[in-house]
Amino acid sequence: MKVDVLTLFPEMMDGVFRSSILGKAQEKDIVSLNAVNFRDYSGNKHGTVDDTPYGGGGGMVLKPDPIFSAVEDLLSQTSAPPRIILMCPQGETFTQQKAEELSSEKHLIFICGHYEGYDERIREHLVTDELSIGDYVLTGGELPAMVVIDSVVRLLPGVLGNETSAITDSFSTGLLEYPHYTRPAEFRGWKVPDILLSGHHANIEIWRREQALKRTLQRRPDLLDKMILSDQDRKIIKRLQQEQQESRN
Amino acid sequence: MKVDVLTLFPEMMDGVFRSSILGKAQEKDIVSLNAVNFRDYSGNKHGTVDDTPYGGGGGMVLKPDPIFSAVEDLLSQTSAPPRIILMCPQGETFTQQKAEELSSEKHLIFICGHYEGYDERIREHLVTDELSIGDYVLTGGELPAMVVIDSVVRLLPGVLGNETSAITDSFSTGLLEYPHYTRPAEFRGWKVPDILLSGHHANIEIWRREQALKRTLQRRPDLLDKMILSDQDRKIIKRLQQEQQESRN
Repeated sequence: MKVDVLTLFPEMMDGVFRSSILGKAQEKDIVSLNAVNFRDYSGNKHGTVDDTPYGGGGGMVLKPDPIFSAVEDLLSQTSAPPRIILMCPQGETFTQQKAEELSSEKHLIFICGHYEGYDERIREHLVTDELSIGDYVLTGGELPAMVVIDSVVRLLPGVLGNETSAITDSFSTGLLEYPHYTRPAEFRGWKVPDILLSGHHANIEIWRREQALKRTLQRRPDLLDKMILSDQDRKIIKRLQQEQQESRN
Repeated sequence: MKVDVLTLFPEMMDGVFRSSILGKAQEKDIVSLNAVNFRDYSGNKHGTVDDTPYGGGGGMVLKPDPIFSAVEDLLSQTSAPPRIILMCPQGETFTQQKAEELSSEKHLIFICGHYEGYDERIREHLVTDELSIGDYVLTGGELPAMVVIDSVVRLLPGVLGNETSAITDSFSTGLLEYPHYTRPAEFRGWKVPDILLSGHHANIEIWRREQALKRTLQRRPDLLDKMILSDQDRKIIKRLQQEQQESRN
């Protein structure tokens, strides 16, 4: 997979692109990550890429020309039509499902604004997707682009050591994870639950499923609405709800 | 504000902490950003910070000792009780409201796992908050911590040039932003809407409000449910809904 990031702050990417999974995926030639400064496409000697908004008001707006030119230069070097993704608060909320969809692409181009708005013609006539990573205000699209890239690249075959580990994570199973414990069995008087030390694997599986359902019910009941539950799961949920009800009375 | 990030990949933070708003906020002494490698607190010569999970299963789990020790070392250097924030998929979904809440704190400590689970005793007995930035799987808590830090630091007084610019952004007003346009007035045959060139400021304000309502209605109707609308807004929404209805018939 080829990934290009258009940004005015390419140095923001360095540490993240070089470390951990993204660094290793590049070493293995599974992905090529490339930050492009679209100021190089300003077409003027001052490197101006923004201007005041028509109709007045505060802030600056990114001009269409430099971003169209930068994308078109990348398109001239590639044969497959890429996904051209605008990172912006107005975009579709990014989810694990979208990460899976993007992981089947050959080429992704991310456009990252910084402080500023985008000229609407970029949105209307250039991009294929608009993405937001959540309902909070950030200084620029760089961190959101890195978030999307990390979530997509880790799904590519050969990137994670164990092919199955990408599948069993939170949001992939639809439930929040059950509690984990490791050594020491007692830390400052706080003990690991006996069941996990019992060696009885079938009971441990039941306990873990119940704990995952319980945590999801308490913290993110909206996730339960979206998933297919077994009869056993439904029985457990019913019992947990009754217990919640009783503890309130 | 003092911000400490506990991570096994401190080099991931460098580019982001040095650039843009976060770099400037540090130069102005408004915030101090510090990445701490909690491997330094492993207490063993191999620097081991994780172990296999009790009860079996794949993956590794971060041990309680190194993370408790690292946090307690930071606490010994500070007087005000900090917020101790675990970045994890099971956490409360981060929002702009939470960013505003955290921006009134003096000291934030972020704990970032990587690939692995956390020993449950960290969750139960050490942290004050658990945060998730969205429903997608990432390799570690580093990018999420940087996202939270960026959104919080830009709210601190003196960080953004214009004190009002933090308030008028998307998610702060409750609506998605209206379309922005800048020069040229015509780009490849695509023109800026006449109203924005009219110089009639009152009409431009009405058009922008209507466009913001329209975009929010089309893309994120859930946001409208959460906000207080004026009578004028409600009239516009009613008309937009009728137009949508008619275009479907």
